[in-house]
Amino acid sequence: MGGSADANGAGSVRVPVPPARPFLDTFRGNLKETFFPDDPFRGVVRERGAGRRTVAALRYFFPFLEWAPAYALSTFKSDLIAGITIASLAIPQGISYAKLANLPPVLGLYSSFVPPLVYALMGSSKDLAVGTVAVASLLISSMLGSEVSPTENPVLYLHLAFTATFFAGVFQASLGLLRLGFIVDLLSHATIVGFMAGAATVVCLQQLKGMLGLVHFTTSTDVVSVMESVFSQTHQWRWESVLLGCGFLFFLLVTRFISKRRPKLFWISAAAPLTSVVLGSVLVYLTHAENHGIEVIGYLKKGLNPPSVTSLQFSPPYMMLALKTGIITGVIALAEGIAVGRSFAMFKNYHIDGNKEMIAIGTMNVLGSLTSCYLTTGPFSRSAVNYNAGCRTAMSNVVMSLAVMVTLLFLTPLFHYTPLVVLSAIIVSAMLGLVDFGAALHLWRVDKVDFCVCAGAYLGVVFGSVEVGLVVAVAVSLLRVLLFVARPRTTVLGNIPGTMVYRRMDQYAAAQTVPGVLVLRVDAPVYFANASYLRERISRWIDDEEERTKSQGEMGVRYVVLDMGAIGSIDTSGTSMLDELNKSLDRRGMQIVLANPGSEIMKKLDSSKVLEQIGHEWVFPTVGEAVASCDYVLHSHKPGMAKDSAAAHESMV
Amino acid sequence: MGGSADANGAGSVRVPVPPARPFLDTFRGNLKETFFPDDPFRGVVRERGAGRRTVAALRYFFPFLEWAPAYALSTFKSDLIAGITIASLAIPQGISYAKLANLPPVLGLYSSFVPPLVYALMGSSKDLAVGTVAVASLLISSMLGSEVSPTENPVLYLHLAFTATFFAGVFQASLGLLRLGFIVDLLSHATIVGFMAGAATVVCLQQLKGMLGLVHFTTSTDVVSVMESVFSQTHQWRWESVLLGCGFLFFLLVTRFISKRRPKLFWISAAAPLTSVVLGSVLVYLTHAENHGIEVIGYLKKGLNPPSVTSLQFSPPYMMLALKTGIITGVIALAEGIAVGRSFAMFKNYHIDGNKEMIAIGTMNVLGSLTSCYLTTGPFSRSAVNYNAGCRTAMSNVVMSLAVMVTLLFLTPLFHYTPLVVLSAIIVSAMLGLVDFGAALHLWRVDKVDFCVCAGAYLGVVFGSVEVGLVVAVAVSLLRVLLFVARPRTTVLGNIPGTMVYRRMDQYAAAQTVPGVLVLRVDAPVYFANASYLRERISRWIDDEEERTKSQGEMGVRYVVLDMGAIGSIDTSGTSMLDELNKSLDRRGMQIVLANPGSEIMKKLDSSKVLEQIGHEWVFPTVGEAVASCDYVLHSHKPGMAKDSAAAHESMV
Repeated sequence: MGGSADANGAGSVRVPVPPARPFLDTFRGNLKETFFPDDPFRGVVRERGAGRRTVAALRYFFPFLEWAPAYALSTFKSDLIAGITIASLAIPQGISYAKLANLPPVLGLYSSFVPPLVYALMGSSKDLAVGTVAVASLLISSMLGSEVSPTENPVLYLHLAFTATFFAGVFQASLGLLRLGFIVDLLSHATIVGFMAGAATVVCLQQLKGMLGLVHFTTSTDVVSVMESVFSQTHQWRWESVLLGCGFLFFLLVTRFISKRRPKLFWISAAAPLTSVVLGSVLVYLTHAENHGIEVIGYLKKGLNPPSVTSLQFSPPYMMLALKTGIITGVIALAEGIAVGRSFAMFKNYHIDGNKEMIAIGTMNVLGSLTSCYLTTGPFSRSAVNYNAGCRTAMSNVVMSLAVMVTLLFLTPLFHYTPLVVLSAIIVSAMLGLVDFGAALHLWRVDKVDFCVCAGAYLGVVFGSVEVGLVVAVAVSLLRVLLFVARPRTTVLGNIPGTMVYRRMDQYAAAQTVPGVLVLRVDAPVYFANASYLRERISRWIDDEEERTKSQGEMGVRYVVLDMGAIGSIDTSGTSMLDELNKSLDRRGMQIVLANPGSEIMKKLDSSKVLEQIGHEWVFPTVGEAVASCDYVLHSHKPGMAKDSAAAHESMV
Repeated sequence: MGGSADANGAGSVRVPVPPARPFLDTFRGNLKETFFPDDPFRGVVRERGAGRRTVAALRYFFPFLEWAPAYALSTFKSDLIAGITIASLAIPQGISYAKLANLPPVLGLYSSFVPPLVYALMGSSKDLAVGTVAVASLLISSMLGSEVSPTENPVLYLHLAFTATFFAGVFQASLGLLRLGFIVDLLSHATIVGFMAGAATVVCLQQLKGMLGLVHFTTSTDVVSVMESVFSQTHQWRWESVLLGCGFLFFLLVTRFISKRRPKLFWISAAAPLTSVVLGSVLVYLTHAENHGIEVIGYLKKGLNPPSVTSLQFSPPYMMLALKTGIITGVIALAEGIAVGRSFAMFKNYHIDGNKEMIAIGTMNVLGSLTSCYLTTGPFSRSAVNYNAGCRTAMSNVVMSLAVMVTLLFLTPLFHYTPLVVLSAIIVSAMLGLVDFGAALHLWRVDKVDFCVCAGAYLGVVFGSVEVGLVVAVAVSLLRVLLFVARPRTTVLGNIPGTMVYRRMDQYAAAQTVPGVLVLRVDAPVYFANASYLRERISRWIDDEEERTKSQGEMGVRYVVLDMGAIGSIDTSGTSMLDELNKSLDRRGMQIVLANPGSEIMKKLDSSKVLEQIGHEWVFPTVGEAVASCDYVLHSHKPGMAKDSAAAHESMV
């Protein structure tokens, strides 16, 4: 150590106080960084002339304009195979999930016809396969069902489902238009893992009704109510139903297992649901099992989606219910859709604009709600099949949509004898794929708090309700962020011998303290929430160091160097805290020294006059220089005169 | 630049992966740092033997045991003067605030008798003067008054006030016992400035009733309702009342002005309220003004506090109201008490333990609620007088308490003719001291967000209600913290020529980029809330840099160095983000390099296998070394071979 500051480190470079910028400039800059971090209109703004800009803007909102003109036959061949594969999955799954939502089964087919077409025009993902999802279906049935019975008042229930879908779409599109996509980020990966597993558990439990052939069942979704409902009517269990259900479930699981082992055989598990439906229907038709306790789908209306504009309910009594359902299901569906889109985009190395995706998914739901569809998004399982089947563009969604159209126009009578228990088996087998033990284990190994978030979401969904699970998980996640800010880590830094570098003493064994100087580092912004904590914690560090040096007969603390490199931001409580710290150190005969403050910090320290109080000469760009200056004063003057030597020090810098 | 890493910086020191610690150890450590950051029981644990530890624990909970044994006569002389001074302020203020809370005036005297005695035993501040406060009084009257009318059902209202005080005390003490003192920190300085100014405005508006001599008045506190109420009955205004009120207000403001100009004359403004009361009473007695529209206090019961244990209401209909009122008023009162205690402790350079103070204030309110007192805390104005009068220990509270006792026993009849309008004048003059324009201006100059918090609190209180103001201010404050985490700043670092130091390019004009290397710094923890933002923002920095280098014909980006020094924490979404970033850079033929990650970060990168993916050889303790290594590879091999040269690089380190 030792030597003048000029010989080492950044030398004569001082920490500048940034020039004052007009308030509106700063404000506009912050606004842009907050809402347009990805600068989405770069491509549009760069073009010249109104015409070219319009074309660029159209291209921005309708990505198919980019790939459609150059669409080749070879690409279509890939998309055709992928589209037919996902259609064979979409048809039975659509019917199953519509049953799960307590809606007419044909709605599942309607929902696989219009929304995929809209997404093909507006979506920017090449791999997303559009369709209904189990979790949102369950949410619709539990939220709407709690106030309107789907059996006693099916028409109102249906209309509310359309209205909720409409609100979900409007909410999703507004999030995108208002650039509030980051709200979806509040659902962290850990939350989604726990939430999905919980939802899968709850959905599987609901299938006990179909599997056991029960007629009466609880409307609650929590595990306690369901178990009570199941075991209170053991005499109602139908062995025919159980046998058929377990048989098909086994078949589906085996095909899943095979496809998982050999990804090339993806089509085995993709085709299995449709195969089960066909087998089940033939079996029932031949044995007339519908008369022996096996419920069947029954009559399915032929024809394409009827319009449903007039069904939307915008009048007071039920509108709030639909609005609430729409917002919650909308966020959940969006989170799944965006996550799926992003994952596959990463595999294929292209970019997905989250806010644009929200507009696409929102529009597809708004248009869906006007054409008898209920909530759709990009389900993971179907998109994975799409990806594995080798889809190249969103054209595979168009192919799926056309296949569903053909089904709606000509093939609906074939589903008359399809047994409900097969649909239950399809749902259960799909749900088991949502439980990701590996991910939960990974969370536990890497981050215990994230594991708590995950477990909170799971237990909340399973023992409370879907909303409870979400609230618990988001609350724990936010609490963690707040706790990070409220209890920032402070550490003592030591010198790495032979260098000007200072690193954490508890991390680097080689780091050594400098006599008379205590170097502290704060690892978070200094805000109202932690200002008084930091004041006390820093005093305690100083007391501890004083005690240690006294017991070892070393020089006491004369300088407290604060490494501010990790202090990203500061508010007025923070500047007051520094002011008070400076004064109290002053009374103890110590000098505060600041190292490496950022420009925002310098600006605020300057405008709050704290910089004046501390003295600009005690601010250094690096810890090394700060300590070198202290050291210089300590060694060229008698100890105890630290405070008086500021003048001498100034002449040196 | 250039040269091998060994020649510069930290040389052969590697960034270590901290050894795994048992989960419970880490957990216990975190718990201690979160809830016992000040290590309060250090003094107790250090003692040996059960007896000595008991004594130390008693001393911890009853700080008077520390100063009482050595209490000297000279100290008592100071405390006596201070005690009598604050008593002369406490008596008129106590009566005024009790009127403000719509409670019997004598309660203000009761509340200045028992609680100060309790605080003298348990409190650790030497300067806090205990008493009732205007804001909490107003809150009690507006919250309780919204459901129970103080004029129609005065007994129930009174009992609810005791119950609310009881709950407030229990809540305050529990916060302290459960070490949750940081909840009070959520009320930032900015919030309190705005809130206090708003409350002062509202309280002053309420005094229009007394000043104008109105009989009917709105129960709402917002400015619109009050103005409507005042101007709808202009014919009811009493000139006698207005004249008397304005006269005394002028007198009080003049004395305040004098004392502010010459702090030595503090006793002038301290004695002014009592003088006003005496003058006003004599005036009314002589002129029989009580028959000419001047309302007087009337009969005040003689005698000490009656017990009120049996008055507490723990039965359903009103208990929730009392509980809610208690919690809100309790937090507000606590915030004021703690802030006052801390400020004066700082002036005199002694330490205040926030959690211990909460226990003291809580206990004083619980015992107060059992002896006919309502909510008390440490008001700023009274404590400032106490401090200026030269108090030395909490004995000044005992003296004040005894003076109030004498008043209660013998002097209450003297207040019979005290006009209410004088009390209003006393309240208004005290309230004007709560409006701190200077502080608001300071907030605007230093931090616009804090100013918004302050303005939000003010406008919320004035146009909505006290609760609305609080909710707005706390919500804006928390939003700021979340936004800081959700939109962390990322900046490009450049080399300060002639050194190994890297600093922000936008802050240091001297900083220069290194060809082929992009150094980025992230200023916040990497959490679920910002992981996807960071991924996109970092890609944009790289795209921008690629574009710039291409247009200037320089070498493209081959290495992306992430300065992780300011990343205080990371969760699993963060580690996944780094993993994805690494993979996508890999595909673009770039290498990610990490500089200066903390031990927690290293641990998580290791346990999530991301470190393995990136390669431990690409992690450096300083940015300087990281860039030096990249530079070495770039200059000793052909460009474009960066990825292949990892082996060569390894041999160098």
